[in-house]
Amino acid sequence: MAKLISQAVIKRMPRYYRYLGDLLDSGVERISSDALSVKMNVTASQIRQDLNNFGGFGQQGYGYNVKYLHDEIGKILGVDKSHKAIIIGAGNLGQAIANYGKFEKRGFVVVALFDVNLAMKDITVRGKPVLMMEQLEAFIEKNDIEIAVLTMPKERAKETCNRLINTKIKAIWNFAHIDLEVPNDIVVQNVHLSDSLMQLTYNMTQIDREKS
Amino acid sequence: MAKLISQAVIKRMPRYYRYLGDLLDSGVERISSDALSVKMNVTASQIRQDLNNFGGFGQQGYGYNVKYLHDEIGKILGVDKSHKAIIIGAGNLGQAIANYGKFEKRGFVVVALFDVNLAMKDITVRGKPVLMMEQLEAFIEKNDIEIAVLTMPKERAKETCNRLINTKIKAIWNFAHIDLEVPNDIVVQNVHLSDSLMQLTYNMTQIDREKS
Repeated sequence: MAKLISQAVIKRMPRYYRYLGDLLDSGVERISSDALSVKMNVTASQIRQDLNNFGGFGQQGYGYNVKYLHDEIGKILGVDKSHKAIIIGAGNLGQAIANYGKFEKRGFVVVALFDVNLAMKDITVRGKPVLMMEQLEAFIEKNDIEIAVLTMPKERAKETCNRLINTKIKAIWNFAHIDLEVPNDIVVQNVHLSDSLMQLTYNMTQIDREKS
Repeated sequence: MAKLISQAVIKRMPRYYRYLGDLLDSGVERISSDALSVKMNVTASQIRQDLNNFGGFGQQGYGYNVKYLHDEIGKILGVDKSHKAIIIGAGNLGQAIANYGKFEKRGFVVVALFDVNLAMKDITVRGKPVLMMEQLEAFIEKNDIEIAVLTMPKERAKETCNRLINTKIKAIWNFAHIDLEVPNDIVVQNVHLSDSLMQLTYNMTQIDREKS
């Protein structure tokens, strides 16, 4: 795939994947881009444009084969393969992610959690051990870990990130409320919940202002 | 504020707020748009354009007064006022959000959690009670709740949403992996963790392909 595809398109692909998965679960075998467009509340031309980035998939007069399209988008998104992950920060949020079994369907396999809190040592979450931070680098190396999830406080995120970039880790799913600096060959995907919350309060406040 | 501001701009504002908050904490009183631009890794012209949507705030040759700009963006984002919230779904994720004290600084005050699990009845999380779903509508009414956080499984999210739109709720912070349908005067802010994870695996897979 030589062509560079914009992150805006990439960001929409999981939503296609989700809708196609729901269609599959409901036994729908094929769908026109018009019908998919109504369901997803985007234009049919947007759908065609987005999918054309990856070579199309539709057939004139037939529409899309739901299973085929679902599987192809899955391959594009890399969820057809397993990726081993560790969660650093075994508090509520870390445990919530470890407990969310459905992520495994997306190829995301949690192997262990890490924490600095000695009280958590040897506890397991959904059968995965909580390990201490001294073991971090050796564990990543030995277990071919690809993804590190940062669910620790902001204050320790930078230091942890600096340790991670010296390992073979390929991606950081960052829930700490800080922007991380990493080399080009490491992917950072941020989930900044505070930012999301502020966008919510902004939009809510706007509606209040319009009403008053 | 009559002007309609794009969600792309709104999405960037919390990040300004966060950086200005960090600068304040480090005792920085004023900053040029150039210095802020380097720090935030966006162009100075982008910063000026973004802030001009709200009337500027900068002074030629002086730059920005950090505290003033921080407070003004806070007002724009609506975090200068308290907003009462409930969390529906008192599992790990719901508890993680209830326990995250820093959200209160953003005006987000959790008053109670709700669940369908009888075993959780009368438990408290960070001093907030877990209530049963029968009490939902009456509780929202009596306590002037503005925000509902959906942290329950996807399967129950739609039904819960339908109950919420018949209350005075103003905004839904939706962590359930489904797109909700609500009237125009209710704000929905989605946090679709699976979508974020798939964007991560996509980008990680791309780097692998480039290397091979």
